[in-house]
Amino acid sequence: MAPSKDLRNRSRNDYPFMLEYRTRWNDNDMYDHMNNSVYNFLFDSVINSYLMDHCGLHPPTSAQHPLMASTHCDYFAAISYPKVAELCLRVNKLGKSSVVYEIALFEKDVEQVKAIGEFVHVFVDRETQRPNTNGMNTQLRQGLQKLLVEYPDSSKL
Amino acid sequence: MAPSKDLRNRSRNDYPFMLEYRTRWNDNDMYDHMNNSVYNFLFDSVINSYLMDHCGLHPPTSAQHPLMASTHCDYFAAISYPKVAELCLRVNKLGKSSVVYEIALFEKDVEQVKAIGEFVHVFVDRETQRPNTNGMNTQLRQGLQKLLVEYPDSSKL
Amino acid sequence: MAPSKDLRNRSRNDYPFMLEYRTRWNDNDMYDHMNNSVYNFLFDSVINSYLMDHCGLHPPTSAQHPLMASTHCDYFAAISYPKVAELCLRVNKLGKSSVVYEIALFEKDVEQVKAIGEFVHVFVDRETQRPNTNGMNTQLRQGLQKLLVEYPDSSKL
Amino acid sequence: MAPSKDLRNRSRNDYPFMLEYRTRWNDNDMYDHMNNSVYNFLFDSVINSYLMDHCGLHPPTSAQHPLMASTHCDYFAAISYPKVAELCLRVNKLGKSSVVYEIALFEKDVEQVKAIGEFVHVFVDRETQRPNTNGMNTQLRQGLQKLLVEYPDSSKL
Repeated sequence: MAPSKDLRNRSRNDYPFMLEYRTRWNDNDMYDHMNNSVYNFLFDSVINSYLMDHCGLHPPTSAQHPLMASTHCDYFAAISYPKVAELCLRVNKLGKSSVVYEIALFEKDVEQVKAIGEFVHVFVDRETQRPNTNGMNTQLRQGLQKLLVEYPDSSKL
Repeated sequence: MAPSKDLRNRSRNDYPFMLEYRTRWNDNDMYDHMNNSVYNFLFDSVINSYLMDHCGLHPPTSAQHPLMASTHCDYFAAISYPKVAELCLRVNKLGKSSVVYEIALFEKDVEQVKAIGEFVHVFVDRETQRPNTNGMNTQLRQGLQKLLVEYPDSSKL
Repeated sequence: MAPSKDLRNRSRNDYPFMLEYRTRWNDNDMYDHMNNSVYNFLFDSVINSYLMDHCGLHPPTSAQHPLMASTHCDYFAAISYPKVAELCLRVNKLGKSSVVYEIALFEKDVEQVKAIGEFVHVFVDRETQRPNTNGMNTQLRQGLQKLLVEYPDSSKL
Repeated sequence: MAPSKDLRNRSRNDYPFMLEYRTRWNDNDMYDHMNNSVYNFLFDSVINSYLMDHCGLHPPTSAQHPLMASTHCDYFAAISYPKVAELCLRVNKLGKSSVVYEIALFEKDVEQVKAIGEFVHVFVDRETQRPNTNGMNTQLRQGLQKLLVEYPDSSKL
């Protein structure tokens, strides 16, 4: 269950999409570094920005929207307010209705990755809160496909 | 990587420690349920409450304090503001300097568990930010031991 | 602009509605007390709980919903995680479409008030995001009326 | 108590310091716009960034640090995730131990100001949590002086 050495060696080049987020005062906890839960807020934010800007998602009205099935994060080093974080995103698996994202948090101007998360979304119909029998819609699939990295047989998910 | 059936069947009786947390307006996101990242805030809160009240931790001054190594959460069902959440805590493994917590979130007056998290703390010396060669102090160990459930050979961690 | 002496002397008896909120780990900032912005989250939470449970508000669908016009808070003393906060609510003015709430934060088992906020909601129609020419609906008005304290001529608002 | 017309007419030119903050998924509440309390987090963040980068504040160790005495915010228009916010800062009054900040939130590429806050900090000695009889230290005063706008007789505060 320990994170593979590979993850600690991830670089920005391993991710096709990136956004900068400035950290906020209250991101830091009493140990003077960003609280672990805040990483999840940032992972969620870069994922949903991509879904809204590149996959047609409109959270208040879209017929399909994502539900989180699971989240995982390995923390390698700390970042502290007021530093700027760079959130990098890729897709590791793309299933019929689900997608496995990998998200990396870097500190601006620092080479080593600080933390890596794996988030699993299942796209459900707004009405039923269940996956559609036809899976996710074409616009979502095509957008996510662009971030898919190095897993040739993802259809088995 | 799918959560075992066992986890979905967890009941409050599987956990020796519990605290109630009232949900807050902004815990809900645009889908009208508690955002996945907020679960982590609550998991962190029940763990640190136990460490402060039962293991002698004083975050601003203690010679040893925890760092988060990894977090994981499986989401089974939603909870929404303004419901009250019950956060249940156990220890699954207790190592020399590390501890694996299992945390369950229930909704008050609802039987089925909503989500289960696994958080891994490593206790480090404040000065070095590294584990002490003697491991965690006695007060931490004795407090955490009281929450240890059903893993006879945890010393292998 | 300094808060009146009256505010520092407020007691729980000055408020007809109260809810308990357990503080969370990340509510504390680097000074080991609850960050000022978190007070606003709690004020918002007790107000919306009252609106949902006693005034018929259903945020995702109600024809009318509140927008915040202004918020103010005077801080008298600190509260720190993991203490339990008591949030007390009253209505100071009730206008045609607007309401002025006063909210007090106490620490459980501590007499002196920690902070007092004044929040101003304007109820708008979901479609137009503007106040209705008839003002807020009857259910909202009747619910808020029950919290109105000591301002006989609030109709001037 | 209504905000003056002046405030609604504020432009970026009225503020000598500015930082960009990308909004986050969970900043939005169920009405699909940034929750009012989140504005305070951002106001706090731009203020403390300035204090740390330009006034020598080091929150975990500085002999003097700020406590919030009061916060106020007037909301004129909404901003929604995933837009980028611009936080603009000025000092309206500079007293012996206290400072009155004015903070404006703009949306990137939008002219009209969204909200304006007034935050009052009192600098206290870490040991006593009380203002020093000599007031704030020179580095704080000189840094804050650079943001002071158009109030010639602020010494009366």
